[in-house]
Amino acid sequence: MKDHHADPLDALRSLLGEAHVLTGQATERFAKDWTGKWRADPLAVVRPASTAEVQGCVRVAADHGLSIVPVGGNTGLVGGTANTGALMISFERMTAIREVRPDAGLAVVEAGAILSDVHDAVAAHDLMFPLTLGARGSARIGGLLSTNAGGSNVVRYGSTRGLVLGIEVVLADGRVLDLMSELRKDNSGYDLRDLFIGGEGTLGVITAAVLRLVPAPRYHAAALAAVRDLPAALRVLRALQTATDGAVEAFEYMPRTYMEALAQHRPDLRQPFAIHDHAVMIDLGGLSRPLGDMLEQVLADAVEAGDVLDATVAQNEAQRAHIWEMREAAAEITFTRLPIVDNDVALPLDGVAPFIETMTARLAQMDAGADHLICAHLGDGNIHLTVYPTSDAPAHLDAIREMIEEVTVDLGGSISAEHGIGLSKLGTMSRRKDPVALDVMRAIKGALDPDNRLNPGKVVPEA
Amino acid sequence: MKDHHADPLDALRSLLGEAHVLTGQATERFAKDWTGKWRADPLAVVRPASTAEVQGCVRVAADHGLSIVPVGGNTGLVGGTANTGALMISFERMTAIREVRPDAGLAVVEAGAILSDVHDAVAAHDLMFPLTLGARGSARIGGLLSTNAGGSNVVRYGSTRGLVLGIEVVLADGRVLDLMSELRKDNSGYDLRDLFIGGEGTLGVITAAVLRLVPAPRYHAAALAAVRDLPAALRVLRALQTATDGAVEAFEYMPRTYMEALAQHRPDLRQPFAIHDHAVMIDLGGLSRPLGDMLEQVLADAVEAGDVLDATVAQNEAQRAHIWEMREAAAEITFTRLPIVDNDVALPLDGVAPFIETMTARLAQMDAGADHLICAHLGDGNIHLTVYPTSDAPAHLDAIREMIEEVTVDLGGSISAEHGIGLSKLGTMSRRKDPVALDVMRAIKGALDPDNRLNPGKVVPEA
Repeated sequence: MKDHHADPLDALRSLLGEAHVLTGQATERFAKDWTGKWRADPLAVVRPASTAEVQGCVRVAADHGLSIVPVGGNTGLVGGTANTGALMISFERMTAIREVRPDAGLAVVEAGAILSDVHDAVAAHDLMFPLTLGARGSARIGGLLSTNAGGSNVVRYGSTRGLVLGIEVVLADGRVLDLMSELRKDNSGYDLRDLFIGGEGTLGVITAAVLRLVPAPRYHAAALAAVRDLPAALRVLRALQTATDGAVEAFEYMPRTYMEALAQHRPDLRQPFAIHDHAVMIDLGGLSRPLGDMLEQVLADAVEAGDVLDATVAQNEAQRAHIWEMREAAAEITFTRLPIVDNDVALPLDGVAPFIETMTARLAQMDAGADHLICAHLGDGNIHLTVYPTSDAPAHLDAIREMIEEVTVDLGGSISAEHGIGLSKLGTMSRRKDPVALDVMRAIKGALDPDNRLNPGKVVPEA
Repeated sequence: MKDHHADPLDALRSLLGEAHVLTGQATERFAKDWTGKWRADPLAVVRPASTAEVQGCVRVAADHGLSIVPVGGNTGLVGGTANTGALMISFERMTAIREVRPDAGLAVVEAGAILSDVHDAVAAHDLMFPLTLGARGSARIGGLLSTNAGGSNVVRYGSTRGLVLGIEVVLADGRVLDLMSELRKDNSGYDLRDLFIGGEGTLGVITAAVLRLVPAPRYHAAALAAVRDLPAALRVLRALQTATDGAVEAFEYMPRTYMEALAQHRPDLRQPFAIHDHAVMIDLGGLSRPLGDMLEQVLADAVEAGDVLDATVAQNEAQRAHIWEMREAAAEITFTRLPIVDNDVALPLDGVAPFIETMTARLAQMDAGADHLICAHLGDGNIHLTVYPTSDAPAHLDAIREMIEEVTVDLGGSISAEHGIGLSKLGTMSRRKDPVALDVMRAIKGALDPDNRLNPGKVVPEA
């Protein structure tokens, strides 16, 4: 039935109640991007309380020709929710953790559930939802799924797609797609789930999910180690995987550029040894046995072999938290000055060292005074690279961006590892993604959202 | 350029050479299904030697209005390659294992590579491609990917989608989609890869893949254990996961129905103890330590707790192979008599016992004389259930099939866990799959194959 209100805001108010249709100043916390790079200027932000209300909002938008932009914790980095005049759908009233089923190893949650709340709810059952990242106290499940979020535990547990059993999606036409599978295996047709996960809200609006849980490790062991070089770091990773039967939960690369920025911006975070060119942060999680002795042994062997130059193993949970804090300060110490060219690239594991070497040499040629900062999920080949050029001339920033893209793609890498595309990487997608792949994405977008109303202009560049 | 031959066979012969365009009796080994349930009557089977030749074949088919049906090792179970008058594309000349890169943890292979050849090639590097199943000596990578094959190691390593980094696909219009990623993380747009994996050749023709490799376990430990019931079996599984830090490679349920059929058809496979109502086969794979003592200890504790009634732990590789042989005889002992209603269902882990209980009771009501046989990948909630009704009246077989579907779906299960849909489960898809999901699948199929020429009539039932 066609909505009979002349004004979409009236229709939405009658659907949700006055208090849940925000306009003007009340939308500011959804409109402002924490990086300061992006803004939204929506017609309104609505706060539905149920999937049925989300359907209602999507239908009002259809009747009035409005675009729809879902928003979660607003912690994204790529301008994924920037818009002008769209109807933004917030999930802050859909935060239920509907059930935790330990025997089935799953939790059923609504899209607005905050990641750290999910962590807490399942911890009571000695289980873990392994997805974690710095923004876990604000990031909501819907946004995490929409961006196929990565984070620090991917080396062991995979990205979001690998951690989700089922989803519920409201489609562009307002219908509900029920993919709330609780299954480990399901070959009943195409893999629709993984299309919406990572779709950044352009194919449908995720309203609920079934999350896969794993046994929570009982024993942790963490270390910070200075290593000779990247190949040495990868040897240490392999030795740890072998010694612990794959219990490496995080293996993060923090080279000199990172440690120096950390020393400058977070002098309170005392560094346990002098800054070397290369360092890694290690976290292990064991179910059957404490892993501290094993970690000490692997590091001692690596010192012997010349791969590790210095190391400290956390002796208690406070020391482990300290090491993690050094890593999780990344966002804070990255966005400290302008101009920046920030990148989130992925390389094959054997391509990380060549990438850094080539990129550094070419950057020095282009801008001898430019600084850069690297922090990497090394176990996944995922490098967060921030360049601070000496000039903010747009052509200069573009040239640096294109150089980094070129080095990445030449080594078989991806120009977005985990942050997604949003608006910020659209140009890069046009330049670097296989044109046939872009055509296939456009065909799918056209098939599922023929009027281009779901988060339009994101992810897939125009032909 | 439009093909100028009046006869597509002439065009194909000029493209591939006479020897690689098979017709008539020469197509028999591709046309005949090993279950005896399905047949193909193709116009021809072609054997291209390269991706470019596959493109050529697809273009000839387009010019002449032919359907295209890719065929791998012809080991499928669901009629996925049955057809009349199609152009079948065999990959038996595209078997190269192009490279194995130990430091990157990957192998690049062509679609025709046989699974066991891939196993052998990577074993030389102490690595493993974990996908394995009984048909590994015949099944080819392209077919395994097209069906998102499962197998015996899913409990530890996931299904095919989780084991593939990249693919190359020839699309319906003959263009090549290059998704040959070597990356652990890639958020550059929609997840196209996982749409073609499991697409059963209806969306594109997979020609090559990048496979994810894992360290090969150095130590194995296997056992056969009689358990009190299914909840007891799941407790043993959890205890093993905890004791070994997740080193359970296979956890297979073989109840009385299975063991009795095994005793009847394979008396040569001596059973180590009397047949109980419930038994599980266990295989562990360790990197850091032998796991035999741990397995003995977990089983001893479970005997103490009353969960395990009898058990035998393999004392050497020959005994381990013997236990595996008992499990891998499944296909052979299943298809021993007619009529059968065979099912490959998935349940939530806590839904397996209720499924078997309800299904058994309802089957007894419908056909008191019917036998059934169950074998399950219990760690994945995946049950292979074969019913042997007393009558082959189509209405009776359908009624049993629908009863099983109903019990499955009522418990939140899937009517295809790992074998796929093909032709055999099309009716089930119509009846049981969310209608919105079917519409979305049709929209995607229409967008990628507008003329419906790629393996038409499979996977997605007509509206």
